[in-house]
Formats: sequence, structure tokens, C-alpha cells
Amino acid sequence: MSAGRKPVIAVVGAGKCSKKLRDMASEVGKLIAASGAILVCGGMGGIMEGAAKGAKEAGGTTIGILPSDSRDDANKYIDFAIPTGFGEARNIMVVRAADVVIAFPGSFGTLSEMAFALDAKRPVISVNAWRLGEEIIPAETPEQAAALALKLAAKPKDED
Amino acid sequence: MSAGRKPVIAVVGAGKCSKKLRDMASEVGKLIAASGAILVCGGMGGIMEGAAKGAKEAGGTTIGILPSDSRDDANKYIDFAIPTGFGEARNIMVVRAADVVIAFPGSFGTLSEMAFALDAKRPVISVNAWRLGEEIIPAETPEQAAALALKLAAKPKDED
Amino acid sequence: MSAGRKPVIAVVGAGKCSKKLRDMASEVGKLIAASGAILVCGGMGGIMEGAAKGAKEAGGTTIGILPSDSRDDANKYIDFAIPTGFGEARNIMVVRAADVVIAFPGSFGTLSEMAFALDAKRPVISVNAWRLGEEIIPAETPEQAAALALKLAAKPKDED
Amino acid sequence: MSAGRKPVIAVVGAGKCSKKLRDMASEVGKLIAASGAILVCGGMGGIMEGAAKGAKEAGGTTIGILPSDSRDDANKYIDFAIPTGFGEARNIMVVRAADVVIAFPGSFGTLSEMAFALDAKRPVISVNAWRLGEEIIPAETPEQAAALALKLAAKPKDED
Repeated sequence: MSAGRKPVIAVVGAGKCSKKLRDMASEVGKLIAASGAILVCGGMGGIMEGAAKGAKEAGGTTIGILPSDSRDDANKYIDFAIPTGFGEARNIMVVRAADVVIAFPGSFGTLSEMAFALDAKRPVISVNAWRLGEEIIPAETPEQAAALALKLAAKPKDED
Repeated sequence: MSAGRKPVIAVVGAGKCSKKLRDMASEVGKLIAASGAILVCGGMGGIMEGAAKGAKEAGGTTIGILPSDSRDDANKYIDFAIPTGFGEARNIMVVRAADVVIAFPGSFGTLSEMAFALDAKRPVISVNAWRLGEEIIPAETPEQAAALALKLAAKPKDED
Repeated sequence: MSAGRKPVIAVVGAGKCSKKLRDMASEVGKLIAASGAILVCGGMGGIMEGAAKGAKEAGGTTIGILPSDSRDDANKYIDFAIPTGFGEARNIMVVRAADVVIAFPGSFGTLSEMAFALDAKRPVISVNAWRLGEEIIPAETPEQAAALALKLAAKPKDED
Repeated sequence: MSAGRKPVIAVVGAGKCSKKLRDMASEVGKLIAASGAILVCGGMGGIMEGAAKGAKEAGGTTIGILPSDSRDDANKYIDFAIPTGFGEARNIMVVRAADVVIAFPGSFGTLSEMAFALDAKRPVISVNAWRLGEEIIPAETPEQAAALALKLAAKPKDED
């Protein structure tokens, strides 16, 4: 990350979810935005919308990398929508755009994002999402997840 | 485009270019940022860097959609870097992210962006770039190009 | 190209076209298949279907790289369908899969394929398609196009 | 799948692996080719090369969908190399090209392929690969894996 660039944190998870999970994602979005980090997500509903809503409520900035080729498909909390037209292959871009990934429960799309994040050496924090082994950092609450993510995003990286 | 969203204008062109062309791209970036539009580009050097520099000097916002998978490859005037890892296929995303495309001289990569923009029904303004036929809107100066782009971006679209 | 690999020739052009153009594409497909080259195309209708039909009639092999994510969308002359789900971005893969590209008339999708082919240093033979400058090799007839393509595909390349 | 099309089976797994695993992948490749199915894989080394080698030894056909943009990067047992230039995002194409996926041990790239396969409703057979839950069909031996894959590939699908 260039000096002067803000940390970017991805929040991934189901496109449809319970109100409880959506609120948890919102809380994460709020906390990372309040600390000056940028939120990146898939730009659609459920966890993605919850996280973006929280980030906007805290005055943050949100980026949505969409599967479709139309900006109109982004949820209303997305500041900058990138309509890829690449379908689920956009998942790989969501995690590459971030320093750290926070994963909420989701199906196989979420699993692919966690896999690509680990492949790209992005730390993955799981809030009750897929537990894939010791590389995944567990968190129980939005507060824990956000604190861990901000700490890891601030850490100097040795990207190749 | 959702109500409330700012217009997004793409500037495309060679990754290496003369100082004169770079300054022209800078002037375009400045004018579109001064009017409140967001600049999207390929995030690299030459025309892309010129346009982003101009936009930042006018206090605007810049998005760079990168061919590589590392944010560090963005030029220093990019606020939000999207490292795709998709190589030249990221060209299609640059133009899809925009309402209007302004093309400066460039090689076949620039030509592919103009082709994809026309395919996606984005108006293409050419500042001495490839002249492909009557769909391309010619402009002679940065002022003309920016004014045309802002006008076209403000126009209601009927996207399918 | 590894020793022992057969030459691969891409035929690109409109997904809908006149019977005359379709027959010309068929003739090209037939000639390249008869010479032992493999046909690659976008797998859909029009020029792509014509070329694939011709290649199959001559006992050749056909590969279709599809925009959709379903093999069922390939035309019936495709032996090996690669359903990408990447939409028009699959154009870049069609030309990368080939040693030489033969372009028939088509719209901006075809133009993007010609642009990507030139960017990837694949020779482009145009049968009344977009004339983009001196890099494009003109051909008037299917026979001319096929002969030129086979000759160029046989030439040793210095790919980087 | 269109009537008359041969079944296509993907074999995924580590790009570097033990001789034992490579031989097991080879055995799978041999068995599916002997039954008339086409092998698709990522075209590189390790499990992919093992499977392709086996398929060729049984007189089968092999397709390799490569991360790089050069056909020359395919292993020598690949009949048809598709050089995507899309990096790891090509994983999604490998599984979409197949009716059934057989997964051998591998790292996060393999995990992403299993995730995308499940997302795309392709049955996934795991030979000691990631065990992700009940959707994954376990197999202990190459014989078991090949038999299961051929049976599932022959089953009529209701793709959406």
C-alpha cells in the first residue's frame, strides 16, 4: 500500500440474510468507517448492503464491485460502483481490492471469496462464516472483527 | 444511474505519451472534477496519470481499475485502486464504470476500450484518438471534450 | 506454440449476418480444417456458426469460447464449448487462443476482438471487416483469407 | 448438454504434488478417457499434468484453461490450450466447462474451484481434498472417483 493510502477492508457474506446478521454487518461497517478505513464489498444486498449502510452512517466511503454490467444494480449505500459484467468472477476482485477481508455467513460465493483472499495472502476474519482451518481468524462480535481488521490492515505488508 | 449518484467519466489513452498530451489529459481531468464528476481510468501512466493528476488538483475523486493484482501499481493520483489481475481485460470494466468515455491517442488497448464503450452504448468522445466512424464524437480541445462529456453524462439514459 | 501442436485459427465476426457472409465464413472454416488447423471462435451464431459448420464438414475440430456460463448456448458445430460467464470479455480469450485471426464484418464486439488481437500481436486478416490501418491484412475471398492465415500460423513466432 | 456432446469432467488440485498423488490423478484421467469423456483442467503441472497424461495414454482428449496468456505454458499432455490471461480467475472457467468436478488435494486455488463448482451446481467429488460439508461426494480411490464422475456426468441435468 502506498504511503498515504487509507486502509481498505472488504466485507463479504450472503446476499440475503437475517436482520440480525445484517445489523452485525452494519456495525462492522460503522466501526471501520469511523476509523477512517474504506469499505469494499460486492455491492449487492444482505451482508453487503448492511456493511455499506453502516459505513455510510459513520460518514465513510463505500466501493461496490458488481457482478452485473449496470451501476444501477448497486445497493443505495454504495458511493462508487464498479459494474464488471464478470458475474461471480468479480469475487476475486472484491478481495484483491482489500487489505483484509471480514467474512460473514454465506454460501459458496462467500466461500470462493475466502479462498481467493487466502490465495492472495489477505488475512481473513470469520464472523461465524466458513471455518477452513487455522489461517482463518475467528471473531465473535462486530467489535472484535472490526478491531482485528483495522489492526491487520495497518500492519506493513510484504506483498510480492 | 441512481438519483443522487455523481456522473462518472472515463479517460482512456496511451500509458506512455508526450508531455503535451499528458497536459491535455490533465486539463480534462481538472475540468470534469471541477464540475463534480468522478474520474475513472486504467490507473496507470501517461494519459491515465495526466487525467488523474488534473482531477486531484481540482479536488476531485479518482478511481483506477488496474490490470495487475496489486494496488501499489496505481499512479499516485488514484484515490481508489481496484487491482483486478485480469490484464487487458480490465479495459472493459473501465468503460462500463463510466457514463461517458473520453479517448486520447493510444494503441490497440485504447482501441479496445473505444470498441467496448460503443458496444456498451457509452458515448465516446475522441480527442485525436481512433476515428472509427460516425458514432465517435470528435473534440479538438480539452475544454470541448470535457464540456461534451459533462453534457452527455447529465443526460438521462435508457440503459437496458 | 509447442512442437506438435496444430495451428489454431480464430474466425470472428457478427453474431447475425447475411447468408452470403455466413457461406463465406463456412468456406474459410472448411479450408482451414482441411489443412489440419483447429478453428476457435466465440461459439455463437452468424459468422461463428458459419465457420464452425464449414470446419466440421471438412472433418475438423472446433472450439467455442462462450460469453454465457452454459455449454448449451454453443452452436451445434462446436466440439468443445468453454462457457466463460464473462460476457463480452470473453472476446479477449478467443483471440489469445489463436495463432492468427480472420475477421469478417461485425459490430463493436468484432472491433474489440481485432483490437485485442493486434494488442496480443496476433496477425489479423480482414475480409471486409474494420480497416484499422496497415497492421490489418486485407483479403477479398475465403480462399485468400484461409491461405494467408495458414501461412502466417505456420510461421515461427517470437512471443514474449 | 446438447444431445451428442460427450461428457466433460474437470480434475482440479495442486500444481505441485507428490508422485503418488500425480499417479492417482493419472489413473483418474485414464479411466475417464477410456469411457469416452473429455478431460478439462487448469493445464499446468502437478495434479493437472497427471490427469492429462493419463487421459492421453488412454487415447482421450484434454483441454487446459490456462491462467497465463500463452499457450506455451500448457503441460505437454494438453490437446487444446485456452490461454486466458485472467490469472486465478480462470479457475471459475475450468469448473464451468465441466459436468462434474473431481478434486484432489490442493491449496486455496483448489478450494476456490470447489466453491465455484458448488456455486454453479456441478457435483464435486473429493479424493482427500477439502471436505466442505455434505455437498461434497467423498471418494477414496481413482477408480471410485472416476466411476462416480462418469455416472453423474451421464445423468440428465436441469441447468437453469
